[in-house]
Amino acid sequence: MKMSKLFHRTFRDIPAEAQLISHKLLLQAGLINQVAAGIYSYMPLGWRSLRKIESIVREEIDKVGAQEIKLGILQPRELWQKSGRDLTYGPDMMRLSDRRDRDMVLPPTNEELITHTIKSTIQSYRDLPVILYQIQTKFRDEPRPRGGLIRVREFDMMDAYSFDLDETGLEESYSSMVTAYQNTFARCGIETVIAEADSGAIGGKDSKEFILITDAGEDTVVMCEECDYTANDEKAEFKVLSNETNPLPTEEIYTPRQKSIQEVSDYLNVKTSQTIKTLFYISDGEMICVALRGDLDINETKLKNKLSAQEIRLASLEEVSQSNNIVGFASPVGIKNIKVIVDNSLLAGGNFVCGANKQDYHLANVNYHRDFTGALEGDIALAKAGYVCKKCNGNLITKRGIEIGHVFKLGTSYSNPLEATYRDENDDSKEVVMGCYGIGIGRILAGAIEQKSDDKGIIFPKNIAPYELLITVLNISDKNIKNIADKLYEDLKLKGIDVLIDDRDESPGVKFNDADLLGIPIRLVVSPRNLAKGELEVKVRNRPDSFMIKLDKAQNDLADLLKNID
Amino acid sequence: MKMSKLFHRTFRDIPAEAQLISHKLLLQAGLINQVAAGIYSYMPLGWRSLRKIESIVREEIDKVGAQEIKLGILQPRELWQKSGRDLTYGPDMMRLSDRRDRDMVLPPTNEELITHTIKSTIQSYRDLPVILYQIQTKFRDEPRPRGGLIRVREFDMMDAYSFDLDETGLEESYSSMVTAYQNTFARCGIETVIAEADSGAIGGKDSKEFILITDAGEDTVVMCEECDYTANDEKAEFKVLSNETNPLPTEEIYTPRQKSIQEVSDYLNVKTSQTIKTLFYISDGEMICVALRGDLDINETKLKNKLSAQEIRLASLEEVSQSNNIVGFASPVGIKNIKVIVDNSLLAGGNFVCGANKQDYHLANVNYHRDFTGALEGDIALAKAGYVCKKCNGNLITKRGIEIGHVFKLGTSYSNPLEATYRDENDDSKEVVMGCYGIGIGRILAGAIEQKSDDKGIIFPKNIAPYELLITVLNISDKNIKNIADKLYEDLKLKGIDVLIDDRDESPGVKFNDADLLGIPIRLVVSPRNLAKGELEVKVRNRPDSFMIKLDKAQNDLADLLKNID
Repeated sequence: MKMSKLFHRTFRDIPAEAQLISHKLLLQAGLINQVAAGIYSYMPLGWRSLRKIESIVREEIDKVGAQEIKLGILQPRELWQKSGRDLTYGPDMMRLSDRRDRDMVLPPTNEELITHTIKSTIQSYRDLPVILYQIQTKFRDEPRPRGGLIRVREFDMMDAYSFDLDETGLEESYSSMVTAYQNTFARCGIETVIAEADSGAIGGKDSKEFILITDAGEDTVVMCEECDYTANDEKAEFKVLSNETNPLPTEEIYTPRQKSIQEVSDYLNVKTSQTIKTLFYISDGEMICVALRGDLDINETKLKNKLSAQEIRLASLEEVSQSNNIVGFASPVGIKNIKVIVDNSLLAGGNFVCGANKQDYHLANVNYHRDFTGALEGDIALAKAGYVCKKCNGNLITKRGIEIGHVFKLGTSYSNPLEATYRDENDDSKEVVMGCYGIGIGRILAGAIEQKSDDKGIIFPKNIAPYELLITVLNISDKNIKNIADKLYEDLKLKGIDVLIDDRDESPGVKFNDADLLGIPIRLVVSPRNLAKGELEVKVRNRPDSFMIKLDKAQNDLADLLKNID
Repeated sequence: MKMSKLFHRTFRDIPAEAQLISHKLLLQAGLINQVAAGIYSYMPLGWRSLRKIESIVREEIDKVGAQEIKLGILQPRELWQKSGRDLTYGPDMMRLSDRRDRDMVLPPTNEELITHTIKSTIQSYRDLPVILYQIQTKFRDEPRPRGGLIRVREFDMMDAYSFDLDETGLEESYSSMVTAYQNTFARCGIETVIAEADSGAIGGKDSKEFILITDAGEDTVVMCEECDYTANDEKAEFKVLSNETNPLPTEEIYTPRQKSIQEVSDYLNVKTSQTIKTLFYISDGEMICVALRGDLDINETKLKNKLSAQEIRLASLEEVSQSNNIVGFASPVGIKNIKVIVDNSLLAGGNFVCGANKQDYHLANVNYHRDFTGALEGDIALAKAGYVCKKCNGNLITKRGIEIGHVFKLGTSYSNPLEATYRDENDDSKEVVMGCYGIGIGRILAGAIEQKSDDKGIIFPKNIAPYELLITVLNISDKNIKNIADKLYEDLKLKGIDVLIDDRDESPGVKFNDADLLGIPIRLVVSPRNLAKGELEVKVRNRPDSFMIKLDKAQNDLADLLKNID
């Protein structure tokens, strides 16, 4: 492609809200163009990158035997009501009515539709296993779209669905998809970690996220320094160190104005881990009480899962007061008509300090089971850096990252309500066992830029760069130079190299700046001075120094160089 | 691909509303699957065809120098209000509100967004010309979706936009796109005619449709038997044979109960072409009177364009009566306070019979200009078979067809309201001159099937068939046969042939029926009987007879055969 013909412009000034590196650079390099909040168009160079990513995804997913389809985008809301997810997604899902007032959905994912679709084709055990996928635009009405391509309302996504006879089959499909993901991300030149994840609105039993580690990420990953334990913080577990003690008799202590955990522990000179934190939530409209060790924080995802709730939120101070609980001195001990949810941490210790549900009083030596009992017990605490790994007792650390891909073992959570069954060898009806899989195509692009760039611009991984090589021609108005550059351009194309040539009538400064900003892996400079010596200057974008090659060996030398860079 | 692994099933029973051949066959062959009225999913084989069509479109459009982009789908309704098309499209456009109640549009086409998008990149004359295109899902809330992929509410479409300095540039871009279209359709194996068309809701000056002629089509094309004149009936013109006469004095004639043109002409024994047809329309809320020769019919598209109206409809009998016009005897002569629109046919004749606007009376010898004058004159009549070609006096005929592609000269009709300008060589601001271009990807698939099929199934053109060759293996349970077939399959793939192998454990009858239904261009039968002679049976789907080839020469023979079929 010749830049003189290319529909392209770089930008100096971009909106102030572009804070993330990838957001800034995508706009400055002219790769994307904003349509509305969280909705972007891809310009020719950006789209070229995206198509390369799509191709890699397609090839790797094809390799594990998956078959490409294309689902309709608009779909009846009914399907989502049947699965219950019309509710789960709430305002995050785009909805509309058609001209006959039928409710339609612009889907963020397609478990319902695909399950509905395969029913007519999958009849017997002989039709299984099968993995179907598509690369298609998805919609999600994010409350706060931001970060350029990181958190958008409309996005290109590869979504795949596996259909198996049983759990064993699902394991195989699932692990083949994990392999396909690893190969995809490696070829795209991005590094990801695999984290155990909460399955959220998708449902199902087991799920993993592929996370690109970067400070710009919105997800927090908890990792062990010693072993391979890695989990999204919504899911991450840790070891609660047990603190067994002889239960002492409960006593009421005067703690005037000491409301917070920190205040109480300072006032009484006990560790925060020796106190009980009492919180109130509204879970699908019902007030509940949550109790955990004072030094820990609630993991709301775990709590929501424990409650099997659609929606939870902290109760307001008014709601707490109105329910006869004394704010700052509330207690699970003696609480009436309110369900108590207890974190495992309270089972591992004793003689806790806890509110007395009486103004300015706390209780000392509270012991679980002796003094109160929860309706539910479990792990509802947030893992943090410095906690202990449950798997190996190692030290946990946290990192920020971007979710690039996700795999879920769904089991029969969709085939059951949507009645997707097959006849087994004994002609008995069985539910199809499903998995689902997603890769954010645009997020790979943004993630790659978050991962590698410098103050001059993007540093593209070779396989997803809009072009592999950029010929920067100085003195393009010199006919001789132009002819040599044009021939070089044609020769390199013949050699199978994906070449862009900057044949614009612009100053060397503008050309070099644009080259750095665009981040094409190899820049080849054609200048009168070097040509006089029969040479060309080569600069690899992510290496510090440039070097010379001979014009007459350029084709082979550059093809070799390309093989040796990432 | 092995059919034993393929996600695929053929269907015997399909919904009764599937009347069109392509609709029936696409469903029976299991290529598409209905999601909702006018919304379909593509199954693996159907999607494979569609992807082949997309590739051909992409290659041909790339060849003329167009650059691929991808626009956001959802877009602010504002943009459409600015251009005025929010109104023009009316309920045909899908609209929704996002979670912050901002009005969004699911677009049927993208003139507004692309014009808005290029503004920041196109600054000077040096940035022009440029052609941008995308292949993307579009939406159109059809009042009566029908015909499978022919009239849908969601569809894959290539939409391109050209941006030029001036009209001369537009001519060049336009004609290069016409060439790209012709090459695309030829490679897809479909035959189209180019018809002059009305530009409808897109607007602009000049437009042509690429129509695939088939009785199943919803469009009517008017063609000359002698010359190359071809036009959509909404646009088609014809020659009104002039009938000059000496104007005679007007007289009132008693015509009791003779209301229709036919009744009056029979009663008075004059030709219908010697009468005037008077009609009443409501044009954007205003009643208007339309007069044309009695033997002609109104072309409502022409009338609407003539009136520059958003919406026109025939007035009801009540509305006509209430406006003091006598139904059956209405007349443009002496009409008051109602604008009269006159067809050219009344200018070419005289001494017409016309209503007297008095119960049971007509006027004889009415002459235009002498007895009444229209507020507007022009061609507002519908061309029909048997009329005379305006270009060569030849005989016009009509055919039915499907619109596959459309090209429009927009001029500045979008760059003006959306302020897309560039600086010319004198640094003066000029409006960008635009063209727009669309190809219905799914319609090519359906159109190809409408064009060629038989009572057994689809007859796919080679370049858009899901696979080029199908190996039908009989006695697959025989290990020897299976091994030979598998080797053949691998050998043909190595030869670069796109092969599907029917390795299912099914009867020959089922396999042959499915093969015919699917319409893969070449069917190769591997059977014990022929293998004993070292032979394979070859059947070309659109040729009557089968023939034998030698197994050991199959690779080359089949590659040659493929080159020689369409």
